Amino acid sequence: MNAEEILKQHIAKTISLTEEQFGYFFSHFTRQSFKKGQALISEGEKVEHEYFVLDGCLKSFYINDDVKMFILQFAMPTWWVSDFNALYSGNPATINVDCITNAEVLSLSNSNREKICREIPGVEYFFRWRTNRGFVALQKRLLSFMNNDAKQRYEQLMQQYPELYNIVPKHLIAAYLGVSRETLSRLNVT
Amino acid sequence: MNAEEILKQHIAKTISLTEEQFGYFFSHFTRQSFKKGQALISEGEKVEHEYFVLDGCLKSFYINDDVKMFILQFAMPTWWVSDFNALYSGNPATINVDCITNAEVLSLSNSNREKICREIPGVEYFFRWRTNRGFVALQKRLLSFMNNDAKQRYEQLMQQYPELYNIVPKHLIAAYLGVSRETLSRLNVT
Repeated sequence: MNAEEILKQHIAKTISLTEEQFGYFFSHFTRQSFKKGQALISEGEKVEHEYFVLDGCLKSFYINDDVKMFILQFAMPTWWVSDFNALYSGNPATINVDCITNAEVLSLSNSNREKICREIPGVEYFFRWRTNRGFVALQKRLLSFMNNDAKQRYEQLMQQYPELYNIVPKHLIAAYLGVSRETLSRLNVT
Repeated sequence: MNAEEILKQHIAKTISLTEEQFGYFFSHFTRQSFKKGQALISEGEKVEHEYFVLDGCLKSFYINDDVKMFILQFAMPTWWVSDFNALYSGNPATINVDCITNAEVLSLSNSNREKICREIPGVEYFFRWRTNRGFVALQKRLLSFMNNDAKQRYEQLMQQYPELYNIVPKHLIAAYLGVSRETLSRLNVT
């Protein structure tokens, strides 16, 4: 499936656009390829784009003063990823986004998002509901983090995204769950 | 300041509405008063409203199988609170919302929100950006939860919302930080 078709099917779950509207919408995105390990967003930099994943797997993460990594999100095909705090506020990035595997994305700039929200009926609705769903997913992640132990969190993650198991190295799964690689091994899940 | 004026000033930070538009927007809200301890949303129930806080302080929280309470959010004047997961999905509530103090709110139903988003130019933009900001705040809370110890989290909370210290009992602050009341005391912060 080509990039246009992947985005079209994703959008169609929320709104109906005519062929012409979708073509115009799509013209605001830029296709980009990244190699495994390559960074899309680095802490301290200005952030001007959000990314719609076409292929591959990315991660958004934070490194603390003790050089410990915390993973906020794994981003798989049809997910959106960025440092939304930096993107929306104009402040420098406080998190990083890079590629766990080779990846293909469609990038959309802040100004183009606002432009198409103004210009195309339905697109603002789409982005409102995209963020509403993101908000709910993040709230579930916070509750899971507060409430469940590492084993339960691991099982939830694998139930939600079974494909992660084959794609994502175990030390990154540990960094998502907020435990050490050793703790993850002791759960007898790897 | 009356309810209309509080909402008007809140909205005006994001969008410009004419007097007539704002009057129509406001006509979709219902003012409600609640007593300290009263519940607005209870686990297992259908959720049809979100609430804009005019006065007082509310909390959204989750009770786990061991009857341990986790607080997701304190909601102060000009904050929005609901079980957004339940509200958006139509599924029964998985969290609770109740009043820490007597409270005044403006309630807005799901269907009225969607109606005014369709009918009034700018209102959809307002709700998109409200959720964008909520998403970013929630991400900061998750990162803080992953990265910082309880003392740092307490200091962040008090720096962000110094007024909470006088309003919210210490056992609820502990439930927000994800520690026991005893641990909070040992931090020498109370």
